Amino acid sequence: MKKIFVVGIGPGEAAYMTPAAGAAIAESDVVVGYTLYVELVRDLCAGKLVESTPMKKETDRCRIALEHARKGRTVAFVCSGDAGVYGMAGVMCEVAENDPDIEIITVPGITAACSGAAVLGAPLIHDFAVISLSDLLTPWETIEKRLLLAAEADFVICLYNPKSMKRRDHLDRAVEYIAKSRSWETPCGYVKNIGREGEYSRLCTLRELKDNEDIDMFTTVFVGNSGTRVINGRLVTPRGYQI
Amino acid sequence: MKKIFVVGIGPGEAAYMTPAAGAAIAESDVVVGYTLYVELVRDLCAGKLVESTPMKKETDRCRIALEHARKGRTVAFVCSGDAGVYGMAGVMCEVAENDPDIEIITVPGITAACSGAAVLGAPLIHDFAVISLSDLLTPWETIEKRLLLAAEADFVICLYNPKSMKRRDHLDRAVEYIAKSRSWETPCGYVKNIGREGEYSRLCTLRELKDNEDIDMFTTVFVGNSGTRVINGRLVTPRGYQI
Ligand SMILES: C[S@@+](CC[C@H](N)C(=O)[O-])C[C@H]1O[C@@H](n2cnc3c(N)ncnc32)[C@H](O)[C@@H]1O
Ligand SMILES: C[S@@+](CC[C@H](N)C(=O)[O-])C[C@H]1O[C@@H](n2cnc3c(N)ncnc32)[C@H](O)[C@@H]1O
Repeated sequence: MKKIFVVGIGPGEAAYMTPAAGAAIAESDVVVGYTLYVELVRDLCAGKLVESTPMKKETDRCRIALEHARKGRTVAFVCSGDAGVYGMAGVMCEVAENDPDIEIITVPGITAACSGAAVLGAPLIHDFAVISLSDLLTPWETIEKRLLLAAEADFVICLYNPKSMKRRDHLDRAVEYIAKSRSWETPCGYVKNIGREGEYSRLCTLRELKDNEDIDMFTTVFVGNSGTRVINGRLVTPRGYQI
Repeated sequence: MKKIFVVGIGPGEAAYMTPAAGAAIAESDVVVGYTLYVELVRDLCAGKLVESTPMKKETDRCRIALEHARKGRTVAFVCSGDAGVYGMAGVMCEVAENDPDIEIITVPGITAACSGAAVLGAPLIHDFAVISLSDLLTPWETIEKRLLLAAEADFVICLYNPKSMKRRDHLDRAVEYIAKSRSWETPCGYVKNIGREGEYSRLCTLRELKDNEDIDMFTTVFVGNSGTRVINGRLVTPRGYQI
């Protein structure tokens, strides 16, 4: 059967990529992906056709993968983190809808929520919500509603795409919504360039997420729930055990 | 510095454990964990002291890890999936609160939400909430509130601990709450024993999650959002791209 692997390579460093991801790339004839991600797995690409397209749109990249698969080539489409969390595994299935003879195999990876949480300590120990602040593909009203309800439900909240060049105030607005049902002193944290050169993390309060110049599009942000505390410099959400 | 690694070993198979997790175990003198998880990394334990305790409570296991670390031994405390998602990374920090000279290092792993999603296709592509149905440590009212609000917010919902011997009706009740703001025909799926012997998955509707005899405590359940569809047998949540 014709195959496209959509491969999550983890946050960056090879130490956080699974053997299954490496094996999927090894088995493939073609490696497709955004230039930065292909660079992270360059060592595994020797002798393979590499289609790294800095500029193309995501759907175009899926079509390139599909064209190769139609010709019988096994393809590894590489994504950062997990291929199934704001990744390419979904749109690849959509683009290949009329090609049921091509198997789309998702190879999971460590998503930024998990790798970033590990850097900070253990903020995601209890129920949590993952929300992207990018409104390129989602109406801002939907994002706003999710922020309000997630805060009201006392979920730990993990924010992807907190800012971009064009959307500098999204995080500030998100923080205002969350603060409607969470204290301004709630312990929070963020991690930039997880598992990459220049990794940087900081603990702060919900208030200090506002007007924060550190945070950019390569950052993942964590907002604690009502029980989250800082223990010896680590951000920790209790699970509820009697200690 | 004295060190305790809290290590996420992924869902089961070695192919889904990161090299970083293997390296943390290799660096350790002592391996602590629930018997089943220690068995999964048995190959890496040669020459190490292994403290696998089938019966002890989680906090007792943390205390065993702490005692070894106090004596200067490097400890790897192994957990399934990610150490930071309903895992031991948090309670380990709590138990070691008065030992600031012991560094607690979280080593992330692939959590069941990500490994299970990969088996089904790509259900978690958009904003999602992770909720445990275990009320051993969390009041049922809190769980109920989170289910209601997560459904209202149109999050994809991933359920951990859907059932246990003692809590056979929790999933049925959860499904009723979710159905208050989501169609009974919503595409859903579940995966049992991800990455382990007997892995089994099925797609179904929200209605078919009720009175479902397949689902047990080794299962992770996925409830689609209002846009989730089945494409060529894969559960896919669209991100919003124009195809
Ligand atoms: C389009 S999403 C891709 C997520 C990716 N598929 C994953 O599972 O981690 C991009 C966002 O993920 C987060 N992210 C991904 N990799 C990261 C890293 N290495 N360090 C910090 N944040 C990261 C950031 O919030 C970024 O804006
Ligand atoms: C106490 S939680 C531990 C979660 C784990 N730390 C993780 O990140 O995957 C136990 C629940 O996780 C889910 N789970 C963990 N490993 C699984 C596997 N291999 N297959 C299916 N579900 C799993 C099930 O819902 C189970 O009831």
